[in-house]
Amino acid sequence: MRPLFAQLTLCGVGLIGGSFALVARRERLVERIIGLGRTQANLDVALARGIVDVATRDPAVAARGADLVMLATPVTTFFSTVAAMMPALPEDAVITDVGSVKGWVVREVEGLLRPRMAFVGVHPVAGKETTGAGAAEAGLFKDQRVIVTPSARSTPQALDKVEALWRATGAKLERMAPEVHDAILARASHLPQLVASALAAALADENVDGRWAAGFGAGGLRDTTRIAASSAEMWRDICLTNRDAIVAALGIYRASFERFFRAVEQGDGKTLMALLERGRAMRERIK
Amino acid sequence: MRPLFAQLTLCGVGLIGGSFALVARRERLVERIIGLGRTQANLDVALARGIVDVATRDPAVAARGADLVMLATPVTTFFSTVAAMMPALPEDAVITDVGSVKGWVVREVEGLLRPRMAFVGVHPVAGKETTGAGAAEAGLFKDQRVIVTPSARSTPQALDKVEALWRATGAKLERMAPEVHDAILARASHLPQLVASALAAALADENVDGRWAAGFGAGGLRDTTRIAASSAEMWRDICLTNRDAIVAALGIYRASFERFFRAVEQGDGKTLMALLERGRAMRERIK
Repeated sequence: MRPLFAQLTLCGVGLIGGSFALVARRERLVERIIGLGRTQANLDVALARGIVDVATRDPAVAARGADLVMLATPVTTFFSTVAAMMPALPEDAVITDVGSVKGWVVREVEGLLRPRMAFVGVHPVAGKETTGAGAAEAGLFKDQRVIVTPSARSTPQALDKVEALWRATGAKLERMAPEVHDAILARASHLPQLVASALAAALADENVDGRWAAGFGAGGLRDTTRIAASSAEMWRDICLTNRDAIVAALGIYRASFERFFRAVEQGDGKTLMALLERGRAMRERIK
Repeated sequence: MRPLFAQLTLCGVGLIGGSFALVARRERLVERIIGLGRTQANLDVALARGIVDVATRDPAVAARGADLVMLATPVTTFFSTVAAMMPALPEDAVITDVGSVKGWVVREVEGLLRPRMAFVGVHPVAGKETTGAGAAEAGLFKDQRVIVTPSARSTPQALDKVEALWRATGAKLERMAPEVHDAILARASHLPQLVASALAAALADENVDGRWAAGFGAGGLRDTTRIAASSAEMWRDICLTNRDAIVAALGIYRASFERFFRAVEQGDGKTLMALLERGRAMRERIK
């Protein structure tokens, strides 16, 4: 395949951005990769691993000559990053991102674009527990879901090229509207996080007769709270930037939880059985 | 060590009872083991694996000569099992159990005892996803917690002998009152189960724009709902037999969940950060 872009400027050379860059390079889909980062240590790793050709902490340097910009930092930094790069960006640059919320990102970024620029929102639903350029690996997205969310400023050409890049990672691509993405992820990802965190927080200081109750938990408690160990900062930002969809998802869960609560309170074995079976059937479906 | 009991009658030759029997036999802590079961197929496996010397489906046959009876069936069957065995049980038999609720079990079983009998409640906090005599293994309890709950009819001698048996499994023994056990397990085990089941049930039929939202979940959703796949019947029975303690635990969780909900609704980043950090700190403690 011929290169799709001359210069990819990668804002944030972490697990996701770095893994993407490794594929783009391996498949020769871009001619050069500039990494924009905050910490020199991580940029040095990215250089040493050949993830980027040039590393810089200066947005203007990173912007120059970029026909593709990929935003791979926390979503709350997108606005300031794009704003800082804007004066030095080519008139027809394509901007894309890998953020896990989409409606808010589309509004933030599209508001900054000059007339001939394009934006293509992308959310690779992948990850692992390690972070940084050192954790990047070309196989990260293989068979994983990558959601592309066309919006007002997604030109057909930019969409096609960005999708072609992602297809090279071996991911399963799927297009949907930004609001649909946000509603789905609020249910499938943001809700489980808040449920797990609320459970962990509830048990944080819960003692019975001088014993820390959570210390008696086995695999069930560990599984159910595992993601409560995730970055609080990242999840705060997701809650703030996808608020309405998350509130709706929390409401759906609250209704379910209250049904369980009532059935236990009333000692209603028949209803409990039906509710537990409903949960069991759902869990079998995502095995 | 000399045998502690002449005859262990094991009611329910499944994962827990079978694993215990393998240790009791290996360490020669009992002279013979009689297995009482419901299905001949499972009893045949127990016989073939040498877990029991004799297998029967008749409670009276199982009761005869038993100086130790271990109840290792679902807790809701304890009453009828003990009642059926009672006429044939020796006057000074010791009864013990492995149920995961204790207050209710103590009340049910102690109400049936004749004057010289003793009862020692035990909850081995261990398990794995497979069940039946085929899954039994002598190493199951190694380094796991085993909670012993002395009650009105636990004589010091019966307590000592039952604890000596469990110590041979390599488990970590701990004594506490039945109500303390139930309050702790309601928080550390029964609550996570209901939270996971309520989450799974909430997403069972949740579609967005024609797509099943849960299908977009990644590891987070899978971890958080993993135990929702457990036996609905078993968890219904736990809810019914440990109701008051579970209602209290659900109330503690509900308060935590509503704090998260409010913080998201209000877009209160500072409170969200504090709540998420609280969950994170708890999760680090049980790593």
